[in-house]
Amino acid sequence: MAVERNIYLKKKTLLEAKEILFENFRLLDVLADETIPVPDAVGRVLDESVSARISSPNFHASAMDGIAVKANATFGASETSPKALVIGKDAFYMNTGHVLPESTDSVIMIEHVNVINEERVEIEAPAFPWQHVRKMGEDIVATELLFPQNHVITPYCIGALLSGGIFSVKVKKQPHVLIIPTGSELIDWRETPLEDLKPGQVLETNSFVLGKLVESCGGVYKRHDMIKDDINSIRKAVDEAVNSEVDIVLIVGGSSAGSEDFARPVIDDLGKVLVHGVTIMPGKPVIIGDIKGKPVFGMPGYPVSTIVAFEQFVRPAVLKMLGQPDKEREQVRVESARKIASKLGVEEFLRVKLGNVDGNIVATPLPRGAGCITTLTEADGIIRVPNHMEGFKDDDIVTAELIRPLSSVNNTIVAVGSHDNTLDVLADQIRAGSNTILSSSHVGSMGGLMAIKKGVCHMAGSHLLDTEDGTYNVSYIKKYLPGISVKLINLVIRDQGLIVPLKNPKGIKGIEDLARDDIRLINRQAGSGTRILLDFRLSQLNIDPATIKGYEDEEFTHMNIAAAVISGRADVGLGIYAAAKALNLDFIPVVTEQYDLVIPEKFFDTENIQILLETIRSEIFKKRVKDLGGYHTEKTGEVI
Amino acid sequence: MAVERNIYLKKKTLLEAKEILFENFRLLDVLADETIPVPDAVGRVLDESVSARISSPNFHASAMDGIAVKANATFGASETSPKALVIGKDAFYMNTGHVLPESTDSVIMIEHVNVINEERVEIEAPAFPWQHVRKMGEDIVATELLFPQNHVITPYCIGALLSGGIFSVKVKKQPHVLIIPTGSELIDWRETPLEDLKPGQVLETNSFVLGKLVESCGGVYKRHDMIKDDINSIRKAVDEAVNSEVDIVLIVGGSSAGSEDFARPVIDDLGKVLVHGVTIMPGKPVIIGDIKGKPVFGMPGYPVSTIVAFEQFVRPAVLKMLGQPDKEREQVRVESARKIASKLGVEEFLRVKLGNVDGNIVATPLPRGAGCITTLTEADGIIRVPNHMEGFKDDDIVTAELIRPLSSVNNTIVAVGSHDNTLDVLADQIRAGSNTILSSSHVGSMGGLMAIKKGVCHMAGSHLLDTEDGTYNVSYIKKYLPGISVKLINLVIRDQGLIVPLKNPKGIKGIEDLARDDIRLINRQAGSGTRILLDFRLSQLNIDPATIKGYEDEEFTHMNIAAAVISGRADVGLGIYAAAKALNLDFIPVVTEQYDLVIPEKFFDTENIQILLETIRSEIFKKRVKDLGGYHTEKTGEVI
Repeated sequence: MAVERNIYLKKKTLLEAKEILFENFRLLDVLADETIPVPDAVGRVLDESVSARISSPNFHASAMDGIAVKANATFGASETSPKALVIGKDAFYMNTGHVLPESTDSVIMIEHVNVINEERVEIEAPAFPWQHVRKMGEDIVATELLFPQNHVITPYCIGALLSGGIFSVKVKKQPHVLIIPTGSELIDWRETPLEDLKPGQVLETNSFVLGKLVESCGGVYKRHDMIKDDINSIRKAVDEAVNSEVDIVLIVGGSSAGSEDFARPVIDDLGKVLVHGVTIMPGKPVIIGDIKGKPVFGMPGYPVSTIVAFEQFVRPAVLKMLGQPDKEREQVRVESARKIASKLGVEEFLRVKLGNVDGNIVATPLPRGAGCITTLTEADGIIRVPNHMEGFKDDDIVTAELIRPLSSVNNTIVAVGSHDNTLDVLADQIRAGSNTILSSSHVGSMGGLMAIKKGVCHMAGSHLLDTEDGTYNVSYIKKYLPGISVKLINLVIRDQGLIVPLKNPKGIKGIEDLARDDIRLINRQAGSGTRILLDFRLSQLNIDPATIKGYEDEEFTHMNIAAAVISGRADVGLGIYAAAKALNLDFIPVVTEQYDLVIPEKFFDTENIQILLETIRSEIFKKRVKDLGGYHTEKTGEVI
Repeated sequence: MAVERNIYLKKKTLLEAKEILFENFRLLDVLADETIPVPDAVGRVLDESVSARISSPNFHASAMDGIAVKANATFGASETSPKALVIGKDAFYMNTGHVLPESTDSVIMIEHVNVINEERVEIEAPAFPWQHVRKMGEDIVATELLFPQNHVITPYCIGALLSGGIFSVKVKKQPHVLIIPTGSELIDWRETPLEDLKPGQVLETNSFVLGKLVESCGGVYKRHDMIKDDINSIRKAVDEAVNSEVDIVLIVGGSSAGSEDFARPVIDDLGKVLVHGVTIMPGKPVIIGDIKGKPVFGMPGYPVSTIVAFEQFVRPAVLKMLGQPDKEREQVRVESARKIASKLGVEEFLRVKLGNVDGNIVATPLPRGAGCITTLTEADGIIRVPNHMEGFKDDDIVTAELIRPLSSVNNTIVAVGSHDNTLDVLADQIRAGSNTILSSSHVGSMGGLMAIKKGVCHMAGSHLLDTEDGTYNVSYIKKYLPGISVKLINLVIRDQGLIVPLKNPKGIKGIEDLARDDIRLINRQAGSGTRILLDFRLSQLNIDPATIKGYEDEEFTHMNIAAAVISGRADVGLGIYAAAKALNLDFIPVVTEQYDLVIPEKFFDTENIQILLETIRSEIFKKRVKDLGGYHTEKTGEVI
């Protein structure tokens, strides 16, 4: 196999790449217009200014229920000398909205009218001209500008347009984006049953995400059939696209510089590559090209990369075609739960969870993998680390762009600490009955206590065994959180043990087998309660960790331990029964342990924590937990 | 005609009314579910939690282009003693995404591989286990919770769901809102040609606005045919609705306490009125009712009232059915351009224009009429004046809820001053080529100068005649803006004169006729340049304003002067030719005057003002202005 590789053009910074994009393409007035009924126009962009055809109101109308009168006929009326008016001559009964009779110019509210009989009324105060009258044109005068061109129609606008006699409007057609998924590994989930998915095959998901992102900024998309890594097929599809009504083409996948990456040679061949490679992370291998005056983008294949590239380049292009500024996310100042390191010369888009802890918006960084879409779906915000910085120091001002609204961030319980599968059930059950969000980060039990010490979380899950007296958590809290009042609430009692493949092919019986030559371990990270438990048991057995293969290979959650075992990466790992059961693995019990929530006193009475406690103590939560397997709920919800 | 009236139930505050609404209706679990394909689910709400069916990646995959190796076979490799690897045995070429061969556990980037020949490569550094490998389950482990119930699906979520092997989801059905427009005055614009509209008839617009608002918070709507003010027909429609699949009913119009207001008696008859009348403005006459356990709302007929009532009561109800919190608008601290007075005991929703003037967000209140939909379409924000306040004093902290994003507010040129029709053309032409918004408030020339003095605008339109020397603006600026450096830019020269009905039925020849007994004037407000002009001419002619009928009757724009004349409210008004021409009225020239823009020096070089000046000087702007009629552009754009 010969190694032929493209070479990246000199990589550009984000700013340079955007400048090149918008200098090359004007993107104004490229869209045709279409005329559509006003009620269908919400979200659409006016292609020309709109002026009213009629006034609103179109006549002088009573603004109250009452009588219409001629103001100067009422002058002199007072409590001591009321003025009598003849119905049908001096005064006319009106409901709100009725036309003012020609001879009248004001309305007296019915509450201020003394009805003498069917023919006569009396008033005790004069009316001033045009009181309680909606004058013709008060809202809109015919011919007046209602909205300028490039205005985006809102539901409110529908009212103004219809009131002004405008029933259809000329709007810009929506930019048409063709999305071409490429890659021989791709599988269409609509055609291939999940059971038939083979290693190396990947469900094609990017085109659907990108399509919905196109729609969310006002465009429409078509998805091209998937194309294998074949330069001629890709060239043909792109060539057809730029010669059609399509406004923007996205070639998804193959935008890097590898031997099977064909986006660049195709664009080079049919047009011109303007940018290949941008110093952003994720999103580096994006290509910006020009074929026949149309923007053609090479989109990275990793899901987060492709989204970042879309939001930085494609979205502003779509919006510019629509005469709209790019969408700017609201920014908030945040405090990072840990130090943020980043690579110099690269602008990093770090996904973070956010929560309001004691008045500070605390950011907890999520994993960085460009291939992990869940780092975006779990994120509340994005911290951008600029090219010229190697990260943020403790006293740097850090701002995050909000993905979710601040109200949702303020309604989030920030849990940092040990991982347990019941936290997911808890999050779900809390959300079932309230708007409170439980957001968990898994850094191990010790990490959780440290987060409480630093004041960057509302609670920490912990299962730290005191090997002296067999108690959990209490002695650690006393040692590591001196001077901080906390409450300790039991979440569950759970079974920990060795997770092994189904039928335990290597016949593992217990911890003592871990040092066997034919056994490879997958370990939990240092500081996790499970790691502390393992190290304690190893020392009891006088096993030197250095003799255990895979001891240095770490994962952060029980589920990832189970995944490592099922994938053959390891033969065994210490974890909870629920994780083994979830992936249908075998389990060798080691210990039944106590998993508690550590909650600082100052948060204990907040509404969110009270909702959490109520949920933990509910029968439905306990039942769902027991259904997971390996859990015991006798002490669940108890204050320790 | 007998005056039968409902009596309002004791009016509730907004807070009380909301409490009554949400205590009476739980609104949870009322919606059925439906199962839909994942790509169609953006914006929908999960009815149950969703867990992954497969892991992602579903195999150990190369994260780089390079060679897959067994890490421990690479130990010892260094620059001085490179290690040779046999392709197909110790090393396997990989592209990003390829499956890691079973015998390997790490990847070396192709850049770090020395290719010796087709069979052999050399490496100069060891690999550590699992480097550059996307491990199975790195993103998602099968069975893990992806999203809890009540989660709203975003485009990002589509990626996580599909990657986790979830191709369809169970979501809540969208709340179904039936909108019943009532009122004998209503006309369906889809059936009646605009020309046939008679005085007293009103285009039915509320149902379309409310429908789009329903959609914008996740519901679906049906519009009932319009119903005349007939209690039996309305009762029948509501009764049918509550016995159908409809979740919420809106009776639009007739929610007040007048003799023809039937929403209350209908709800009383079929169910129970919980609230009638809330101390909010606009929106007071809203009704909250319960018929067979379904919320039935009596919605006010005025467009702004009905929108406020919707956003305060109906929207949170729809969102609660969907398990979502109410949408909170972002709040900003603002400085009011003028004192805000408001009625004690009423919570007012004051619509304001916003702009960033010299770092302060300045709020300019819009007219208050509940019947004026344009007060909402022109608004950037809403200031709420609480029940217990009579308004805001100068040093009160005032916050506004944002209707438009802050980025748009920051991109707005705030123009306060004299009204001229060319400002609309200017706003439109600026928006054609940029994202800059020109927002004009019409307070007259003197009001504009005062706004500049207070620092609450970027520019002021002004046409103040110095009667001593015939110049415009300069002497006023010297007198009223001492110490403030401004530039004066001519916008237009324009014809002012008397606007009279077509064919001038009363034979008006000039200002001297205004005091005639059979003539009724419509005047401009004090402080406007046009008013100053009129007063000057009257004093030249020795006419006492007190002798002029209608002298006290004021309007704020030239277009409203023209509207007053065409509606028969007045026989004549002083205004610009363009306004007369727009409404096809006759015009008796009085003066040709200079209309300038006063721009403080400190704003002159800002991007927005430079865009404005460029637009003013463009030929297309001048042409459009001349097409309006009565304008001269010889000096347009010149610095005076």
